[in-house]
Amino acid sequence: MVSRADIAAAASRIALNVRHTPLLRAGGAEFGLPFPVVLKLELLQHTGSFKPRGAFNRLLSAQLPPAGVIAASGGNHGAAVAYAARSLGVRAEIFVPTLTPSAKVARIAGYAARVIQTGDTYADALLASRARQAETGALEVHAYDHADVLAGQGTVARELDHGAPELTHVLVATGGGGLIGGMAAWYAGSTRVISVEPESCPTLHDALRAGHPVDAPVSGVAADSLGARQVGSLMFPIAQRFVSAAVLVADAAIVAAQRLLWERFRIVAEPGGATALAALLSGAFVPPPDAHVGVLVCGGNTDPAKVAP
Amino acid sequence: MVSRADIAAAASRIALNVRHTPLLRAGGAEFGLPFPVVLKLELLQHTGSFKPRGAFNRLLSAQLPPAGVIAASGGNHGAAVAYAARSLGVRAEIFVPTLTPSAKVARIAGYAARVIQTGDTYADALLASRARQAETGALEVHAYDHADVLAGQGTVARELDHGAPELTHVLVATGGGGLIGGMAAWYAGSTRVISVEPESCPTLHDALRAGHPVDAPVSGVAADSLGARQVGSLMFPIAQRFVSAAVLVADAAIVAAQRLLWERFRIVAEPGGATALAALLSGAFVPPPDAHVGVLVCGGNTDPAKVAP
Repeated sequence: MVSRADIAAAASRIALNVRHTPLLRAGGAEFGLPFPVVLKLELLQHTGSFKPRGAFNRLLSAQLPPAGVIAASGGNHGAAVAYAARSLGVRAEIFVPTLTPSAKVARIAGYAARVIQTGDTYADALLASRARQAETGALEVHAYDHADVLAGQGTVARELDHGAPELTHVLVATGGGGLIGGMAAWYAGSTRVISVEPESCPTLHDALRAGHPVDAPVSGVAADSLGARQVGSLMFPIAQRFVSAAVLVADAAIVAAQRLLWERFRIVAEPGGATALAALLSGAFVPPPDAHVGVLVCGGNTDPAKVAP
Repeated sequence: MVSRADIAAAASRIALNVRHTPLLRAGGAEFGLPFPVVLKLELLQHTGSFKPRGAFNRLLSAQLPPAGVIAASGGNHGAAVAYAARSLGVRAEIFVPTLTPSAKVARIAGYAARVIQTGDTYADALLASRARQAETGALEVHAYDHADVLAGQGTVARELDHGAPELTHVLVATGGGGLIGGMAAWYAGSTRVISVEPESCPTLHDALRAGHPVDAPVSGVAADSLGARQVGSLMFPIAQRFVSAAVLVADAAIVAAQRLLWERFRIVAEPGGATALAALLSGAFVPPPDAHVGVLVCGGNTDPAKVAP
């Protein structure tokens, strides 16, 4: 288990490397909802997603070998590892699948990493990265299934909790589960944490039903950021204990949430970044009366032309 | 003169109608600068710019005639007046010049206002709106030259001051001067307020040189939001007293600032919204050592495709 103390230590460790991202408090009318919503604008983080929190915590907690670091990623984690490696002066190799958008590939390369695009999905890229790691001895920076990564991602919940202590429910998109695992470990039941996934990537939803991580299909508009095939083994017991619901949303609801964020807020969220909000807008999750609801907008790495009609 | 008490009263009056927009604290390295910068993300305001602050304060302070309200605008003020009028249940007619981008025209119409596009620049649209106002008796909501509008725009400085009281310098883009006039009235010399204008719309720069408002040319990438031809008569004495510098930036510097805001922050700023930051990035304004610098990002009403390379 990851503890609050681990997350607080991570927050201190990475404080100079990550942004404290702002909150936007919005009235319910903006969403057609009968309650206000607090948006945590984590898409404004370095590299356009929450991922540098875990990446920096992992790199700053490890001995970095001469071969540098290696990671597999749908794109956002790879960008964060590349960014962190460059900041700390070490080399990075990033394996991404063919479904990763070219804009994300270019961004990873822009942070001076070597990018290898191989395999259909994240899970395939992960296998390839592990074969390469066995050759080079580089430090593997797993996208979600490592305690330091979980603790790093948990720092976003700590910030949200400090900024909006009144929240009773927090909605978070789930891919491999590093983000929601870290956040649920922080809240530890003091605030209900709701997992939101695309119907086409139901990783945590299916795992909670089965009682253990299982392979789930990977497709749809958010597959590059939420298509992990399985949730991590470290996050799963945290989710069983502290994730109070795992809901699914259609791709159309995700795209509608992206449009609303642009139309009403001038926020450019990628599909995975709009997925949590989509659960509120579509009614996939309906909070009880008098709830105080927070939504993590966790990434903005998309072609901005795609969010405007 | 507009007083702090006027601005505080405006803040109370409009509190339920506008968003308290967030701050983003960024390290200087993000900008290639040797000092940190606080960004006030006012582009996240309703309708995508600061303009609803002044529009709501004007409408909520007036008796609204049966004919409703009428305004001339380069686009952002018109959207705000249309939005405020719809919120308060009155009709709106908005006059915009031909240089107003079609996206802004569509947005004004989307708030159920009648839009009349006429004349080359804002000043021409203003003349047309006044002829129409004489016929209808609608309430004129001037884009900047009215005390209630100035006090409303000043509320953004009040929020910034409360959120970042350490600031010694605040950079603000100037068009007709309603925003900087209201903000300078709030700070009243306690923090230095720096005006930034495109070289191609040097309205306040030229007025301060001449000692009175004068006609200035109107062209370039930010002309739809900053192309007022003359600063307002009410703001001018405030600027003489409390605006400590009026600097100019090239269009290329504005576009570079837009690109940086997207690349490093996933923020979509329109040209006028990136103009204040352009002064820091281009070196048009260099703060003294140990300054604490704030930058208002005042609008995001652009085609998001234009900010990505």
